Amino acid sequence: MLRLGFPVIGVTDIPRAAAFWTAALDLVSVSEKESPRWRTLEHADGSGPALGLMHSESPVEPHPRLHLDLFVDTTEEQESEVARLIGLGASRVDWDLYPPDPDFVVLADPDGNRFCVVDLSQAESGSN
Amino acid sequence: MLRLGFPVIGVTDIPRAAAFWTAALDLVSVSEKESPRWRTLEHADGSGPALGLMHSESPVEPHPRLHLDLFVDTTEEQESEVARLIGLGASRVDWDLYPPDPDFVVLADPDGNRFCVVDLSQAESGSN
Repeated sequence: MLRLGFPVIGVTDIPRAAAFWTAALDLVSVSEKESPRWRTLEHADGSGPALGLMHSESPVEPHPRLHLDLFVDTTEEQESEVARLIGLGASRVDWDLYPPDPDFVVLADPDGNRFCVVDLSQAESGSN
Repeated sequence: MLRLGFPVIGVTDIPRAAAFWTAALDLVSVSEKESPRWRTLEHADGSGPALGLMHSESPVEPHPRLHLDLFVDTTEEQESEVARLIGLGASRVDWDLYPPDPDFVVLADPDGNRFCVVDLSQAESGSN
């Protein structure tokens, strides 16, 4: 049956991206699926594949068509996780489309790929 | 705990995208999370959120930094699912970066967002 596999993130530096995303989301790198152009990351709890990393030289998109939402449960957790991600190599994005009271924070991974950290306690409308 | 939430797809026509992606992946639209600019799609089996759809006017990216891999288990299933997706409004992409013996087919959703249908029986290397 057709199913959602995983999002694939294009990066210029696969080892750097693997280090970031495994630490960010508690994932593990599947070593037998390593190549210079590809890496599969799986959930550390054994629940299966989570992310693909693919070599890409495409320009980073300031307002990408596709992005990842990461979830946290509280505003405090959002603050602490944003700080942790920045410590891992993410950067804060000066996002030009924030609504007045956003439930999300826009960060970029070490390659500049933008993603959101969404506080589900504020996201009842689902409108991020 | 921080976790992978879901991929968010930027589209110009949210009802059209919701019709396509719910039929493609057996998802359901969460009506209380509808807005003109946002739609949350959940797995029909109740296992939670699967995709977000967000209004976007960003240009479609020919070689996007981020894309979705959808999975099937056999070559026959890949062929039949590609045909089904095209029947739902996807289009086949004349992908310029296919390797000689690809395990994936590149399609575009009704908005032009590119994604892959990966045959896991051929994808032992994980190198798509």
